[in-house]
Amino acid sequence: MTAGGDPGQLARTATGAPGDLTITGFESLTFNYRSHVGRDVEGHGHPAPEHTATQRLTRVRTSAGVDGYCFGGSEETIEVARRLFIGMSPFDRELLHDKVAQGQRLEWRALNPRHVNTLDQALWDFAGRLTGLPVYKLLGGFRDKVAAYASSMCGDDIPGGLDTPEAYGEFARACVAQGYKAFKLHTWMPPYGPDLKRDIAACAAVRDAVGPEIKLMLDPHHNYTREEALYLGRALEELDFYWMEEPMPEYNVSSFVWLCENLTLPICGPETAEGGLYTRAEWILRGAADLSRTGVADVGGITPTMKCIHLCEAFGMRIELHGGGAGTLHALGAMRIPGEFYERGLLHPHVDFDAQKPWLKTPIDAIDSNGDIAIPQGPGLGEEIDWDFIKDNLVQDWH
Amino acid sequence: MTAGGDPGQLARTATGAPGDLTITGFESLTFNYRSHVGRDVEGHGHPAPEHTATQRLTRVRTSAGVDGYCFGGSEETIEVARRLFIGMSPFDRELLHDKVAQGQRLEWRALNPRHVNTLDQALWDFAGRLTGLPVYKLLGGFRDKVAAYASSMCGDDIPGGLDTPEAYGEFARACVAQGYKAFKLHTWMPPYGPDLKRDIAACAAVRDAVGPEIKLMLDPHHNYTREEALYLGRALEELDFYWMEEPMPEYNVSSFVWLCENLTLPICGPETAEGGLYTRAEWILRGAADLSRTGVADVGGITPTMKCIHLCEAFGMRIELHGGGAGTLHALGAMRIPGEFYERGLLHPHVDFDAQKPWLKTPIDAIDSNGDIAIPQGPGLGEEIDWDFIKDNLVQDWH
Repeated sequence: MTAGGDPGQLARTATGAPGDLTITGFESLTFNYRSHVGRDVEGHGHPAPEHTATQRLTRVRTSAGVDGYCFGGSEETIEVARRLFIGMSPFDRELLHDKVAQGQRLEWRALNPRHVNTLDQALWDFAGRLTGLPVYKLLGGFRDKVAAYASSMCGDDIPGGLDTPEAYGEFARACVAQGYKAFKLHTWMPPYGPDLKRDIAACAAVRDAVGPEIKLMLDPHHNYTREEALYLGRALEELDFYWMEEPMPEYNVSSFVWLCENLTLPICGPETAEGGLYTRAEWILRGAADLSRTGVADVGGITPTMKCIHLCEAFGMRIELHGGGAGTLHALGAMRIPGEFYERGLLHPHVDFDAQKPWLKTPIDAIDSNGDIAIPQGPGLGEEIDWDFIKDNLVQDWH
Repeated sequence: MTAGGDPGQLARTATGAPGDLTITGFESLTFNYRSHVGRDVEGHGHPAPEHTATQRLTRVRTSAGVDGYCFGGSEETIEVARRLFIGMSPFDRELLHDKVAQGQRLEWRALNPRHVNTLDQALWDFAGRLTGLPVYKLLGGFRDKVAAYASSMCGDDIPGGLDTPEAYGEFARACVAQGYKAFKLHTWMPPYGPDLKRDIAACAAVRDAVGPEIKLMLDPHHNYTREEALYLGRALEELDFYWMEEPMPEYNVSSFVWLCENLTLPICGPETAEGGLYTRAEWILRGAADLSRTGVADVGGITPTMKCIHLCEAFGMRIELHGGGAGTLHALGAMRIPGEFYERGLLHPHVDFDAQKPWLKTPIDAIDSNGDIAIPQGPGLGEEIDWDFIKDNLVQDWH
């Protein structure tokens, strides 16, 4: 009888016992890049003349001498994180989220989920970098790739852009030619819409362009009335659409219950409603959606996203993740209940999506000819940060 | 501007890239030990004359040269695991559970959750041993210790054992003197019961013995009628009990809904009902319990246990874990919603609980003078296996 292997072989190479590691600091740097995406009055992205934009990189430092990184974040988040989380174990993600939740009624309630997300992802990145494992393997892997859908920008008035129903059809056809097996329209929002009939015409043009085999989804103007949402949904049923998102304000939960009762078209939500895991639980209980929806940034990171996924698994309910990026891919790699798709975008005929993140050496979500995205295999989040690019475009160094 | 730390420092010390690691085998060994616990006709444990008992140790082997261990398991589980899981990534716990779920209607449905649990825990143990981290830190830590309750054996007819209500009172007083802040009675089951009035007398004797500050729980005969369960529950309300478990068969979900509606005493469940995460979701939806209940062994390991915990967090519901052991402690260390207690036992005045697992160099769940248990800090599950003891008592070597 022999004991196999060499338990803890990596532990002895770490700087100090893993259980004793602490968070020693939070820092960020900012750098410029050239962007081709601008924002309309509502904040939706559209093609824009090349201009300078600024990006932030958040860093958590640890006593291991190994750090974790996440793009995004804010100064105030880092200030709060320093006050609350320095000295904590960098593995105590549950404790971090508990402290955030405890503080939501206090003066630092400004720590919104989008920024908590950067702390959570940086801690997952640290754990992966320390151990050499991709985050989804730490979480417990299920798959190594996931199908993507092409997610269009909102409609506009740009000639040859997304200015007509026919333009959507042409763009969808181009996306399918690139490998995508599914396409989601964001149609015309203010100031370019809304226009119910035009939305339906765009959906019909896309179905006509891609044929019956491609899965199609719609994310329309999010302030339609009940009657408009129902009218839209029935048109999508005729066009064999796969789901519809948020045609009404998500605070009107009863309206979503009513819509689900009146449509066979699956309704996917909530997305923008606050309340993270709790709100998703209530939507399931109320029957306010057929598919649940969670965004890693929307709910505060990979940690709460996995809880939303587990909630949905408990009820045998599908859950589609909102938005893209490395953290989303790792959550998709670690989930049993699909999560059928990775949302790739937002895409537009005039924008080179792959060129939008010049701070990465390689795009994190390159699509293959089958329309699939590989779950990143590098340590942590698996982003290959282009330090030379950041250095060359530095606005403010680590501080 | 400098990039901090040395990303992936541990990755480079691993044998091969972590993403390429595979499961190379499943094995077990068996060994004897001297036990002082026997089973009655129903399978409940009681003190018994010293006798030889057999224990199994399950091992998962990996291409890393680092293995994972879990006590327990079965030959048939290992045979199924070899057929299905060799060649898989040892981090793909979600995929393993998916394959188990897919197969539940096939010929190997004999793979019951209690045995899947040994595979799941062995994989978590491997991940912790490889990285040098305790499992709860991989999961995301919340706390480093947890309060224990003393969980008694079932009633018996042993003089000075648990043979009278007064004997329970004396034993509870001794447990409180040892540090426990809470005590749970298992009362008389067949062939020693049931006896409704005697159960209540035992609960009253314990309350009288320990005073008003100690939290008390009851796990009585699990085949009482609705009326008996209600009668019992009202008596426990008078005695200020903290919860009651499973006074009726758990397939009678409606009876539990009815009981919850008619009592202020919290009802904790389900425990023995099959269906893991799904059954717990339905119980929450039905209002069949006030606190949820999950056992790491009952639902197939740490992985599904965490999903049950996340489900309960979504509904702001407490969840108490059934049974003890290393995996239970790690789940408790990684949960935000208590899980207020670790169930330590089963205890009896005539049995030395700490001496019951001579295959461990130190008890995994030693209680301190405050009544708390430390979450194990060693790599993986943190069990210090006494290889010399196992070698000296070997029945069958690794095979």
